[in-house]
Amino acid sequence: MDSKKDKYPKVIPIDVNGNISIAKLVEEFKSSGVFGPGRIAKAVDIYSKMIEEESTIFLGLAGALVPGGMRNIITDMINKNMVHVIVTTGANVTHDIIEAVGGKHVRQVKYSSDQELREKAIDRIYDAFVADESFMKLEDHIQPIYSKIFEDNKEENNVLAISTIDLMREIGSQLEDSSSFVKAAFDKKVPIFVPAFGDSILGLQLWLFSQFNRVLIDDMGDLGEIQKIANDSSKAGAFFLGGGVPKNYIFQSLLMSSKTFSSAIQITMDRVETGGLSGASLSEAISWGKVDSESKMVTVVSDITIALPLIYAGTLAKRS
Amino acid sequence: MDSKKDKYPKVIPIDVNGNISIAKLVEEFKSSGVFGPGRIAKAVDIYSKMIEEESTIFLGLAGALVPGGMRNIITDMINKNMVHVIVTTGANVTHDIIEAVGGKHVRQVKYSSDQELREKAIDRIYDAFVADESFMKLEDHIQPIYSKIFEDNKEENNVLAISTIDLMREIGSQLEDSSSFVKAAFDKKVPIFVPAFGDSILGLQLWLFSQFNRVLIDDMGDLGEIQKIANDSSKAGAFFLGGGVPKNYIFQSLLMSSKTFSSAIQITMDRVETGGLSGASLSEAISWGKVDSESKMVTVVSDITIALPLIYAGTLAKRS
Amino acid sequence: MDSKKDKYPKVIPIDVNGNISIAKLVEEFKSSGVFGPGRIAKAVDIYSKMIEEESTIFLGLAGALVPGGMRNIITDMINKNMVHVIVTTGANVTHDIIEAVGGKHVRQVKYSSDQELREKAIDRIYDAFVADESFMKLEDHIQPIYSKIFEDNKEENNVLAISTIDLMREIGSQLEDSSSFVKAAFDKKVPIFVPAFGDSILGLQLWLFSQFNRVLIDDMGDLGEIQKIANDSSKAGAFFLGGGVPKNYIFQSLLMSSKTFSSAIQITMDRVETGGLSGASLSEAISWGKVDSESKMVTVVSDITIALPLIYAGTLAKRS
Amino acid sequence: MDSKKDKYPKVIPIDVNGNISIAKLVEEFKSSGVFGPGRIAKAVDIYSKMIEEESTIFLGLAGALVPGGMRNIITDMINKNMVHVIVTTGANVTHDIIEAVGGKHVRQVKYSSDQELREKAIDRIYDAFVADESFMKLEDHIQPIYSKIFEDNKEENNVLAISTIDLMREIGSQLEDSSSFVKAAFDKKVPIFVPAFGDSILGLQLWLFSQFNRVLIDDMGDLGEIQKIANDSSKAGAFFLGGGVPKNYIFQSLLMSSKTFSSAIQITMDRVETGGLSGASLSEAISWGKVDSESKMVTVVSDITIALPLIYAGTLAKRS
Repeated sequence: MDSKKDKYPKVIPIDVNGNISIAKLVEEFKSSGVFGPGRIAKAVDIYSKMIEEESTIFLGLAGALVPGGMRNIITDMINKNMVHVIVTTGANVTHDIIEAVGGKHVRQVKYSSDQELREKAIDRIYDAFVADESFMKLEDHIQPIYSKIFEDNKEENNVLAISTIDLMREIGSQLEDSSSFVKAAFDKKVPIFVPAFGDSILGLQLWLFSQFNRVLIDDMGDLGEIQKIANDSSKAGAFFLGGGVPKNYIFQSLLMSSKTFSSAIQITMDRVETGGLSGASLSEAISWGKVDSESKMVTVVSDITIALPLIYAGTLAKRS
Repeated sequence: MDSKKDKYPKVIPIDVNGNISIAKLVEEFKSSGVFGPGRIAKAVDIYSKMIEEESTIFLGLAGALVPGGMRNIITDMINKNMVHVIVTTGANVTHDIIEAVGGKHVRQVKYSSDQELREKAIDRIYDAFVADESFMKLEDHIQPIYSKIFEDNKEENNVLAISTIDLMREIGSQLEDSSSFVKAAFDKKVPIFVPAFGDSILGLQLWLFSQFNRVLIDDMGDLGEIQKIANDSSKAGAFFLGGGVPKNYIFQSLLMSSKTFSSAIQITMDRVETGGLSGASLSEAISWGKVDSESKMVTVVSDITIALPLIYAGTLAKRS
Repeated sequence: MDSKKDKYPKVIPIDVNGNISIAKLVEEFKSSGVFGPGRIAKAVDIYSKMIEEESTIFLGLAGALVPGGMRNIITDMINKNMVHVIVTTGANVTHDIIEAVGGKHVRQVKYSSDQELREKAIDRIYDAFVADESFMKLEDHIQPIYSKIFEDNKEENNVLAISTIDLMREIGSQLEDSSSFVKAAFDKKVPIFVPAFGDSILGLQLWLFSQFNRVLIDDMGDLGEIQKIANDSSKAGAFFLGGGVPKNYIFQSLLMSSKTFSSAIQITMDRVETGGLSGASLSEAISWGKVDSESKMVTVVSDITIALPLIYAGTLAKRS
Repeated sequence: MDSKKDKYPKVIPIDVNGNISIAKLVEEFKSSGVFGPGRIAKAVDIYSKMIEEESTIFLGLAGALVPGGMRNIITDMINKNMVHVIVTTGANVTHDIIEAVGGKHVRQVKYSSDQELREKAIDRIYDAFVADESFMKLEDHIQPIYSKIFEDNKEENNVLAISTIDLMREIGSQLEDSSSFVKAAFDKKVPIFVPAFGDSILGLQLWLFSQFNRVLIDDMGDLGEIQKIANDSSKAGAFFLGGGVPKNYIFQSLLMSSKTFSSAIQITMDRVETGGLSGASLSEAISWGKVDSESKMVTVVSDITIALPLIYAGTLAKRS
């Protein structure tokens, strides 16, 4: 018998029953320690460590997270000081604000074809749905907000030049829905960067507004600010829900610096073999100097909407 | 306002904290109702209904489930009468028996290359590992069992012709590990079909044995038996962990009958677009008469080792 | 015998030999007509029809297309008037310009760890690589170009407010590499939209420049322009290489209009089940009014770098 | 300038036009050398080398290859002595024989639901279809063949105990369709192993036959034979179309030996992260001693029906 082999921990089979807590489930995942469960448990450890070490935590939001039911968790993460910077697609803030102004995402819509949905003015996001009237509500509420922002912030030449973090802060200040993560971010002074702001319904609404008032996005202001935050961090942690622009934007915030992210978690179903950044391994990021070989890192290959509740609840349990 | 639209249920954002039970989590998944969480909740409902309606439940086992930590859950499912027929790859029974005879699956093995592992006589299954010595233990234990089975069951002409369900039953009767699903299946009279028995270490061990004693597999006996069980069921339910041979073998058990499976759950990461059966939609199975349009069906796109504990625990919770 | 059944075309097995042309291969794919080959053949038909009908063709570029060897095909598509509008991530233009200014993407770099690559100043993109010195070359060339653009286009108040299409046009005008798609786009008056311009090395370089000269991106100008082009098209066709921001940005260009895209092709490995837009079916886009039920559409599930050369060459063959 | 860096070959962008041959395309793929094209080119090199070195080539067939149009290529590979041993799922031989006896696979069947297909007695395989009548034709032809095999091969006690390679050889000898790979394999003395023979329509048909005549599968005979062939090979090469039982069965043929496969190619869309063998990396197989660190190996992540025609034609071109 090779005594060295005995030192390797066993894969302890996962035991569950209907009464155990998520916290206990995540412990079981950790004792099992391999495949998906092992990675979820590792994500909990890394996220807990990020918080314990007072890292500045950058959260990347891609995909249909709000229609997928992740809104409250994101808001909770902000309210519990478990995230300090958000970088998101325009879609995620659009869907958050839709709910904040009385619109909604629904399910169990029966349809025989997408054409039928079109005729009913219901838009489909896989098996979630949003009615056109929810977008109309968004328009009704956001245009006055844009007006107010314009009046309050325009420069002498009647031009509004605004960074997306300022824009999101101003919008957040006007919302009253305590479940909104845009509002929570305003309340907790968490900046929300939207690097492709124009690429969203919210962006199209701003374009509508801009037909009568000159509006420019201060992308360079955003870029300066995120680099400053990252550089000023004693430690920086990255938590990527999906890939896309948010993942790249967060990682590039330290690209012009000699610092790296101390820890990184990504949840994604994208594949590594196509060479795209969304599915790229976190190890690859070492070669770019975005993380380093000492960084704590894990990729969870899962539907985000399944893995995030587990990782978040498991992390809460460890902290309490 | 379209009143018809109001009747659609909202996607209720998932709320979690560190203390909630898995049962509560699955309720949250159900209230959210879309994407992966919606499908996990639906799987819980369908599995609960299968049990409530006293369906004969066929469990298909593919992939590296035992190295992935799923052994206890499978054993539990058998012991709690939540599965009545098992169809599996040879690998899953091989790995179960390895643990039953004192072998083990380990993790956290550091290695710089697979060549290094080869030199250390450690076999890798993604990030789980099994030492060659565990396979030697299997050999030490299984050969005497094969001898006993041969002596007890051989025909007059000194030939053993045995179905895989009889073979697994005989092996199960010789095991003492209460965590073994092969033993639990023996105890609870759950037949285990291994349609490609030869395609496994257990099969290679039987081949070794067969060098001195003629052994034939009675595949036709197996085929007759599974069709009889399926046909005699008042209701039949299918629960597929992965695809492969087990999925096809379970579904084909009613192919020569006018009956269909009343319900079906599959957990898989395989894709639908390649045309292979493993990733095929359950809806496609309607065209074949394996299920029908009234059958309750759901596909959960997930790492099995993440989704199964949730579905199983959620189902236990509903029953208690 | 059901005579109706006889009218269905057979799946004709694909025949190949070493001498047949891609054109013939695509014909074989069409006669086979199912799975991936059927979809590639359909993409060729749709792309050919787009061109024949004089559609305005919008090309979306996501993923690591230039490191993946797709640069010449994109440039060719522009030069042959087979694409009229480009929407891209910042990475794709960055990598194109790197090559245009003498940098390069390499392969077959041996490495034992990403840390070793970091020490060698080589950045990895799956199995392609780019040396830090290529990024330095980019910096050396792009800063003077930015200066020139600033001087030529700044407003009275010494502020440069520029849309990304103007920015890309100005950059393209300064390049001399006939293989560059940014240059080809300038030559052929094909606008290049970069909705998340800041999210790239090119964006970081502009930020560097902006430390001394105020620069604002006119995102609203871009948004107005792409909507105008889309609305003014007699027919609009979309060709998506990957998803992400480019897919959404192209599709939303007709969202405020009653027009739809007449045809759409997407090549992607992203999955539909996560609900994200990148993997969303084109059929889903009907519910949003981005395409309609008469639109010609196909999704090719493949590594883009395998499928695009086939689709492009097949389309060329049909036209000649 | 680091002179060492200059030695790395560049990623040469792929150039295509409508007239180039597949052979030229594969050369372009090789000059590009990364991502999917690089892997296809590598597969061509490895397959060519396998043939040149007179390896015994084991072909694994999983997935819906015949409905997917791959039948002629497989038959060609046999006829051109480019494959020497086949291991397959029962489905692939079933579908081959269906076509050999006058059945067919069709496409472009319009349907509004799978229930409608059921009513029309048309079975769906993603977007390929096979009518129930094709299965009836199979039954009409295979039962007399089984009778003949039984009469010709039964033992004294009126029992037929037959290995699957003998069974497939006997069936092949009775077919007249020169496009059939089962017939080609018979003609060229290529053994076809079907380790889960019972798991197929052909198996169910044998079960029907066995209701009146005792039939046993000699799985141990198969196991002995494949190990003997593998061990007797001067060099062994593996070519996996998909994973499943065929991949494992081929790889395990050298598990009890100190020899390894000198080269291995797999085409698959299955993922590595779930731990299942189908998606497992070929490198993992080094740890098991199935291949070794000197073996030439490549995994092509692609729909098989797209990649196989390219790899096969490219290999033909290199040989001519």
